[in-house]
Amino acid sequence: MKKKNKKVNAAILIIGNEILSGRTQDKNVAFISNWLNSKCGISVNEVRIIPDVEKIIISNIKNLSKRFNYVFTTGGIGPTHDDITAKSIARAFKIKYGYHNEAYKILENYYGRIKFNDGRKKMAKMPVKSKLIYNPSSAAPGFMTKNVLSLPGVPSILNSMIENCKKYLIKGLKVHSKTLNLFTVESNISKKLGEIQNKYKKDVEIGSYPFFRLGKIGVSVVFRSSSKSKLNQAYKVLIKAVKIKQIKILKI
Amino acid sequence: MKKKNKKVNAAILIIGNEILSGRTQDKNVAFISNWLNSKCGISVNEVRIIPDVEKIIISNIKNLSKRFNYVFTTGGIGPTHDDITAKSIARAFKIKYGYHNEAYKILENYYGRIKFNDGRKKMAKMPVKSKLIYNPSSAAPGFMTKNVLSLPGVPSILNSMIENCKKYLIKGLKVHSKTLNLFTVESNISKKLGEIQNKYKKDVEIGSYPFFRLGKIGVSVVFRSSSKSKLNQAYKVLIKAVKIKQIKILKI
Repeated sequence: MKKKNKKVNAAILIIGNEILSGRTQDKNVAFISNWLNSKCGISVNEVRIIPDVEKIIISNIKNLSKRFNYVFTTGGIGPTHDDITAKSIARAFKIKYGYHNEAYKILENYYGRIKFNDGRKKMAKMPVKSKLIYNPSSAAPGFMTKNVLSLPGVPSILNSMIENCKKYLIKGLKVHSKTLNLFTVESNISKKLGEIQNKYKKDVEIGSYPFFRLGKIGVSVVFRSSSKSKLNQAYKVLIKAVKIKQIKILKI
Repeated sequence: MKKKNKKVNAAILIIGNEILSGRTQDKNVAFISNWLNSKCGISVNEVRIIPDVEKIIISNIKNLSKRFNYVFTTGGIGPTHDDITAKSIARAFKIKYGYHNEAYKILENYYGRIKFNDGRKKMAKMPVKSKLIYNPSSAAPGFMTKNVLSLPGVPSILNSMIENCKKYLIKGLKVHSKTLNLFTVESNISKKLGEIQNKYKKDVEIGSYPFFRLGKIGVSVVFRSSSKSKLNQAYKVLIKAVKIKQIKILKI
């Protein structure tokens, strides 16, 4: 993994009617985003969830691949008729869609010649010059086409493959974060928080999120910055301010 | 709720750095989508997750409100500096942003004059001619501006408010669904499924989703259609086909 001393960003494109209809709860966004943040210093700046419709996939791939350093797609790379991610990406980039030699060999070897039926062969079809993302769970590889990395939708399989994306990614500037949990309500600290955010607007991003925990109401204040010292400065200003106001600080 | 005998669609716009960073697992997409499907006959056709950045919110509101019958936003309507959904929607539609008389009264009444501080007053600010979406949990109302319905990000509060959206929505054609769970792998049924999908391509949408349950591998085949009879026809064709192949049908 190469390092780059600047911000690197990504988008996630979730492809699947089952997520849009609410039938299936997506778990891949949080997983991929946490992994990119913590392991690669890459921030996810946009997520889209779209149906299994070729022209919609193509237009989203074109749009997102231009605007972000990387695009991660999930879903639609299996053996059935509604698995059209690979074909759509090939069309978006005007690259030939067909059997990928290495993927074909991996799958043939995994299933054996007799059980390697048409459905399974379909999983070896992709934009022909893609780089493979190996799959330790169920053999069928993901693939990287230009700056688009395509992974399956099943979370357990995706999770097992994610480390194999690393070698294709340029590492960005790490974003540090620090959270202060306060037993208060947002409206009690909103003025102070606004002042601190304004003071550190160039360097620190401050988010405020209500929570309900152990029957108590609280606010998680999350500080995020690529500068550890600015992060600590902003954090300390808030601690000082809330101590004056006698707001209990929950240590976790 | 008015009825309309045709397809009605919606997009969901999740506004919040905490979802993008993976810190918080979104639960609102599945909830809203299920509710719209089952209670209103409205299909969610696109979801976007974006950061708390004004110009990004504005461009997404403009784009989605043109392309879909309704847009549901979640997040960014609280009292802190990072809650900028209301202001951004006002700007997207070039509507005045200021105190909404009824919302102001609701909040003043809820908190009492003394505790009604600036942070809390901010929650009464919105595009001035919005319709209110009442909030039985914590008073601060959501609002509907043109075809955009804005709800809070905290799932328990959002869930308590959703029924109050109903009166503003036109009911679409109900989409029926039926699921067949098979103890098999996708590649064993992919050819047959493709044939059935092709035969019913105008009326029935067929999705195929692998599952792991009770230590067994299976496939959920989901049929969706606004025509109950076409749905049943397609379903029966698959049952017949898999019976011939002696694939065990799991009854749930």
